[in-house]
Amino acid sequence: MKALDDLITAFRRFPGVGPKQAERFALYVVRASGPEIDRLADILHIVKESVGYCPECWNYTEKGLCSICSDSTRDHSVICVVEHPQDVAAIEKSKTFNGIYHVLHGAVSPLSGVSSSQIKFNELIERVRNPQIKPREIILALNPDADGEATSIYITNALKSSGVKLTRLACGVPLGGDIDYMDEVTLSCALRGRTVI
Amino acid sequence: MKALDDLITAFRRFPGVGPKQAERFALYVVRASGPEIDRLADILHIVKESVGYCPECWNYTEKGLCSICSDSTRDHSVICVVEHPQDVAAIEKSKTFNGIYHVLHGAVSPLSGVSSSQIKFNELIERVRNPQIKPREIILALNPDADGEATSIYITNALKSSGVKLTRLACGVPLGGDIDYMDEVTLSCALRGRTVI
Repeated sequence: MKALDDLITAFRRFPGVGPKQAERFALYVVRASGPEIDRLADILHIVKESVGYCPECWNYTEKGLCSICSDSTRDHSVICVVEHPQDVAAIEKSKTFNGIYHVLHGAVSPLSGVSSSQIKFNELIERVRNPQIKPREIILALNPDADGEATSIYITNALKSSGVKLTRLACGVPLGGDIDYMDEVTLSCALRGRTVI
Repeated sequence: MKALDDLITAFRRFPGVGPKQAERFALYVVRASGPEIDRLADILHIVKESVGYCPECWNYTEKGLCSICSDSTRDHSVICVVEHPQDVAAIEKSKTFNGIYHVLHGAVSPLSGVSSSQIKFNELIERVRNPQIKPREIILALNPDADGEATSIYITNALKSSGVKLTRLACGVPLGGDIDYMDEVTLSCALRGRTVI
């Protein structure tokens, strides 16, 4: 059945989906009601059309500035730098941070050949150096692995001369872990105990 | 972001998908290219419009009789009864069976309150009793659990008087397992060593 095979192939492209799970998803689509699948197809289009980058923090947003950057009750002088949009959601759930974010969309990886120009690194440096923004503190909330460390060194070197206070998440985040998968309490501890680099 | 939340909710309905995986899928959609997502939405529509039931074996098919039922080189006098369409695919991969199938789309489950009228049970009985079809053998390839056993008893009772030879998969299928997840060799052994009920 070509249509079903095409659908399985499409689901195989989803992150972490193997052949069995893709097959189950395709059969779910066959079993599901017509309106339910029409709605799914519609939402796919809506998301592709409406979701873009926030021009300030580069998180995903539906229109112009994201809800965090446009929130005047938040402290715009503290910028938390994360690798992925999921990390913003995870930190927000810890309810410990009231500043704003900068999403790099990846990490510098000498091993995988990802350079600083392939992530939102220059955008961060420009943002910090911009005299109209001039943040008080930059918190590096990068994943505690080799790529996170490399990115942290790049950012530290680039911002050393700017005089901004650079901090990192406290130990508390277990090594080799993934910020996106951490529980709220651990993230909360790590935010409270952050240390100056 | 409403659009993204709607998409996450839609993906949560997929079988076995939790909140984290649904979020990853939604962010994959945001990251993926526009044409790729347009294609996915199109395939969803195509599958819903084109995939229906084979009127003989009740497997999913794109038009009229499925490829197995319309294959004249297969032995139409041996019908293998399975619970789910995935089971057909798994047995086909074992390359040991050259008959045709009957997909029940579930199992009789006294505990979950699924009766024989909610699955393609009467369709099987009619098919076996139809003098124009008159199969020689019915192989019950049901999952080796309580529901599979209950279904097997129902089918055996209904077909006892018909004189058709009823067989079941050989022991070799581990108890509590799922036919859909079995490897080809085990399925092949089970098919070869099938025993008369």
